[in-house]
Amino acid sequence: MTNDSITAPQGFRAGSAACGIKAKGKLDVGIVVAETPCSAAAVFTANRFCGCPVTVGREHLRRGWLRAFVVNSGCSNVATGQRGLADARAMCRQVGDAIGSPPDQVLPSSTGLIGSFLPMDRISRGIASALAALSDSPKAGHGFACAIMTTDTRPKEACVRIKIGKEHVALAGCCKGSGMIAPNMATMLCFLTTDAGVAPSMLQRMLRTAVEPTFNRITVDECPSTSDTVAMMASGRTARIGTGAAGEVFAAALGELCESLAYQVVKDGEGATRVLEVIVSGARSPRDAHAVARAVAVSPLVKTAVHGGDPNWGRIVQAIGATKARFEPSQVSVSLGKMLLFSKSAPASRLDRKKLSAEMRKPHVAVAIDLGTGRFQDRVLTCDLSKEYVSINADYST
Amino acid sequence: MTNDSITAPQGFRAGSAACGIKAKGKLDVGIVVAETPCSAAAVFTANRFCGCPVTVGREHLRRGWLRAFVVNSGCSNVATGQRGLADARAMCRQVGDAIGSPPDQVLPSSTGLIGSFLPMDRISRGIASALAALSDSPKAGHGFACAIMTTDTRPKEACVRIKIGKEHVALAGCCKGSGMIAPNMATMLCFLTTDAGVAPSMLQRMLRTAVEPTFNRITVDECPSTSDTVAMMASGRTARIGTGAAGEVFAAALGELCESLAYQVVKDGEGATRVLEVIVSGARSPRDAHAVARAVAVSPLVKTAVHGGDPNWGRIVQAIGATKARFEPSQVSVSLGKMLLFSKSAPASRLDRKKLSAEMRKPHVAVAIDLGTGRFQDRVLTCDLSKEYVSINADYST
Repeated sequence: MTNDSITAPQGFRAGSAACGIKAKGKLDVGIVVAETPCSAAAVFTANRFCGCPVTVGREHLRRGWLRAFVVNSGCSNVATGQRGLADARAMCRQVGDAIGSPPDQVLPSSTGLIGSFLPMDRISRGIASALAALSDSPKAGHGFACAIMTTDTRPKEACVRIKIGKEHVALAGCCKGSGMIAPNMATMLCFLTTDAGVAPSMLQRMLRTAVEPTFNRITVDECPSTSDTVAMMASGRTARIGTGAAGEVFAAALGELCESLAYQVVKDGEGATRVLEVIVSGARSPRDAHAVARAVAVSPLVKTAVHGGDPNWGRIVQAIGATKARFEPSQVSVSLGKMLLFSKSAPASRLDRKKLSAEMRKPHVAVAIDLGTGRFQDRVLTCDLSKEYVSINADYST
Repeated sequence: MTNDSITAPQGFRAGSAACGIKAKGKLDVGIVVAETPCSAAAVFTANRFCGCPVTVGREHLRRGWLRAFVVNSGCSNVATGQRGLADARAMCRQVGDAIGSPPDQVLPSSTGLIGSFLPMDRISRGIASALAALSDSPKAGHGFACAIMTTDTRPKEACVRIKIGKEHVALAGCCKGSGMIAPNMATMLCFLTTDAGVAPSMLQRMLRTAVEPTFNRITVDECPSTSDTVAMMASGRTARIGTGAAGEVFAAALGELCESLAYQVVKDGEGATRVLEVIVSGARSPRDAHAVARAVAVSPLVKTAVHGGDPNWGRIVQAIGATKARFEPSQVSVSLGKMLLFSKSAPASRLDRKKLSAEMRKPHVAVAIDLGTGRFQDRVLTCDLSKEYVSINADYST
């Protein structure tokens, strides 16, 4: 069995356990441990009520080296003040003591309900069990991907393999996230590993670059989470990555890895039945392109129409018109799949509403908007809005 | 029977008809006619793909005088280009010819599906029937309020009576709007009348002032409509309103009228079961206060929690943290009803989640946020987000 999990790159082991925060004995504590200190990088949420683990994680990332990720799901340890910070530090200390590393080489993450304290006795037992189960097997990596889930219906894993010179390099990772998804600077929780050797500053730069067009271009409900984290460890077991061709190949592979995981997040968005991609071209600035793509992608009217396969394309026009992007209304055209819907201020002639409805019921719906005023483009990925989203969120905490 | 409809002020008659745009013989054409030319004012949508009737209405308002409103529901005549403009003008011409006024003293409005042409033969028959039915009875005024509805479950009418000197003055009106509600500069469709005499420029100023804290502070789904219009006619049959005390009394009554209608809109928001009021104080600027109130009011996570009576207050904190408003997180406090939820970066002690859940199931839920950093305040009204909203919008056009 090929290992495509977070333990696929050389030098990493993973473990998980069920400590009783989540119901029904589901895995809720996960750990990834590197055999030796790794160069590391991370981007975090821009939300100013960031979680306690994010505050501690930022401190620990300062030196650029990590030995482990420790994660729990079911309780996010956000809005919990001094006690929350102490709890996040205690998680790092327990893992550090067990693997023989200083606590500041451990990155803590928590995800789940905001505003509750961590049940530290359970967490501590869970960490001990997960440490006892550490392994580099695909099953162990997969277990970690399951242990970080909340409302996700499936784990999200990806692995990209490249060759640098004569050396085989693997990049892999997993992420969680289904609701409260509108990453800004970072996203939900995402953990990445590679066996290449990359200096911390370069890894940080590459990670930031990979996150921008991928995780920072997805939205489920346009609610930026308080816990957003994308963190990566590079073990240095295989090729050394510098600038030049190897750096470009590695950066492209990292982009591909993030794209796959980001796509999996919107595909598994809370209540989602299909993916909506909004592609904007002809904008006068990157900012304008992004504003229009995001406005259409966050519109609950567009998202419900896509859910119902309702050919109500006027709502796309409505969303574009509500932005501050610069354009001349008569120059704007809108297509869905290969069907032109709107141009020159009027509906396209010969628009077949039945074909349009069928196009809107595909698993991947692509809306293309040409603002007709410049050369910049962007795109945002989202999902449809269903009754299931409301069900999931109307009684999340009870 | 007291007349509290749009025909309550002296000098106005209303008529309505069912011309077959809406199903099941529902009223879909409405007209309000003043006996003599009225000073008039209006505010329109900020959406740049504004409807053809909005474009024509802006032209007609330039002189500040109107004789009539003509409205159809079921088709908004938006994104319909030159043909749409000609259709809106034809509606005004037909009404103007019948009542002996130039077409530019008629304000046209259309609401409903975006991107379809008006069925002008039906519209024309409907206008003829509505004109034939003109009356100043409460029933006629109520019929007009019904004729402008789309997904509204009930008509929205209000009347305010004041005394200026020895004269009795009435202000009245009705509005429609249930989805695609996030007024900016104006809102959905709202038609107001008064029998006071107010110069057009003063009426325009007063209307803009009344709209800002009322219609511009409500949201159902944060989608600013392409057809937003608040228009008012003053017949001058009763007191003359100038500056000074009379002006203040009149402006306050106009504010009260707009507040009542705006509240009715969110209460009847698509799928709504309760109203959510978000009140922000202690902000460093009016803009910061508005940004925080709006961020909480538009959050689908907060709105679904309110729907389910789920005491998941952490989502309020999440929404505040995602804004760019200036504040120190440790100074922020959040209450719901009279219950303190969060202050000094941590959950309130002795928080009773059952009581909180009960508070969240009331018909009017009030969230109060003190940013603790300044003296400015604001508030936004919205409704909860239910499965019914998704149902209504997943197959609106089919």
